[in-house]
Amino acid sequence: MRIALYQCPPLPLAPEANLDRLRQRAAEAALRGAALLVSPEMFLSGYNIGLDAVSALAEPRDGPWAARVAEIARENGIAILYGYPERSAEGAIFNSVQLVDARGERLGNYRKTHLFGELDNSMFSAGGEDYPLLELNGWKLGMLICYDVEFPENVRRLALAGADLVLVPTANMEPYDFVCEVLVRARAFENQCYLAYANYCGGEGEIRYCGLSSVSAPDGSQAAVCGREETLAFADLRRDLLEKSRESITYLKDRHPELYRPLV
Amino acid sequence: MRIALYQCPPLPLAPEANLDRLRQRAAEAALRGAALLVSPEMFLSGYNIGLDAVSALAEPRDGPWAARVAEIARENGIAILYGYPERSAEGAIFNSVQLVDARGERLGNYRKTHLFGELDNSMFSAGGEDYPLLELNGWKLGMLICYDVEFPENVRRLALAGADLVLVPTANMEPYDFVCEVLVRARAFENQCYLAYANYCGGEGEIRYCGLSSVSAPDGSQAAVCGREETLAFADLRRDLLEKSRESITYLKDRHPELYRPLV
Repeated sequence: MRIALYQCPPLPLAPEANLDRLRQRAAEAALRGAALLVSPEMFLSGYNIGLDAVSALAEPRDGPWAARVAEIARENGIAILYGYPERSAEGAIFNSVQLVDARGERLGNYRKTHLFGELDNSMFSAGGEDYPLLELNGWKLGMLICYDVEFPENVRRLALAGADLVLVPTANMEPYDFVCEVLVRARAFENQCYLAYANYCGGEGEIRYCGLSSVSAPDGSQAAVCGREETLAFADLRRDLLEKSRESITYLKDRHPELYRPLV
Repeated sequence: MRIALYQCPPLPLAPEANLDRLRQRAAEAALRGAALLVSPEMFLSGYNIGLDAVSALAEPRDGPWAARVAEIARENGIAILYGYPERSAEGAIFNSVQLVDARGERLGNYRKTHLFGELDNSMFSAGGEDYPLLELNGWKLGMLICYDVEFPENVRRLALAGADLVLVPTANMEPYDFVCEVLVRARAFENQCYLAYANYCGGEGEIRYCGLSSVSAPDGSQAAVCGREETLAFADLRRDLLEKSRESITYLKDRHPELYRPLV
């Protein structure tokens, strides 16, 4: 399965412009054979926009944005994972991502569980137990958002549930290149899955984003690596590589859960 | 605190020769100001030696080898972590490491809990719940062995118990450079501790070891990195770096243990 990552500077407070460029990238990605397009965290609204703007913009998961993205997915015949501020029925606001398939069906939604510092905590409520596992073209997909992936427990729980590919929209900033360059590669290897990390580049207010989006493979290789610039990157995920790697690297079978009680 | 790692080819079935070179390295390390010398997995006996040899050589943790290493430590005024095959009172054999302080006192012993493939399983019983946390010169130390460190749960449990430094004697072989180059660095960063990884180089039977021993720091830097050759490497562990890094990277505080139940 070929997937595309859209690494770009954020366009804060500009959902229409973001939907426009999402349409353009979806068309390009589909033309080049991608089955899935992954965009960064809070793609539709921008990320470093403050509580007032998040409150004004947030939508339910089945709101107008979801309908617009579904239309783009359907028109281009490509699944899309996008980030947005989600308003729940009770009025709480979450930092969420939603996956829409190539027919425009909403396959699943995930709310960031591990909020990052004052930036996240000033805007969002934390998600709870809902770590959905979805299926796309025979691949089992898990979703996380940015800081979530830095906790090995989060990727482990998805891998134990059977994830072949973990999708991680992110907004990772200076000085945290280490996360892009080392940590995400470790996650894919130690869990024997693919991991796609789609980051922003450029700036947003006082923040400078790292770029360095990537797709890490279970054998330690990288199926895609971006630099610091705007890029539509492609990666070919290989079922044979995944299976062969899992045969020789048997971490999930060799665990001793009875020894891990201190973690909970 | 300055520590030394002894990366060397194994000398299988030659405990006297191994004690000799341990004495030489201890003297050199102490002279250069190290408070602790870390040697590879199964250092005293060699690693890829088969069940018969392991059975013939294995000693209790307070046996003659322990007395010899204690003497070397005391004579040179340096703590030593060494690997050896341990025979329990019940006659089981474990892949163990033991820490002796600069006065020759045995501070603690750890039995490998995560056995690696046929190689380990054909020779050893697996250790249990005993993950001791020791104190040396004001630093809290945890111990793991080789394959153990590849499971994020093992380092996490030591970090949650308060480890500042995790010591990992290892016998990591081709084709697993990834573990040396990426995984151990991730462990130090994601747990905000130092991690010392002391490997073999050279060969032993059909095995080729990776070398690439290292000391990884909590801020993503490396305090020591070895190549493929025999080396006595030094690293200066900085309490100020550790504290400053923990102030800005707050993983241990930001965990949500209630979400990690699937791991156990």
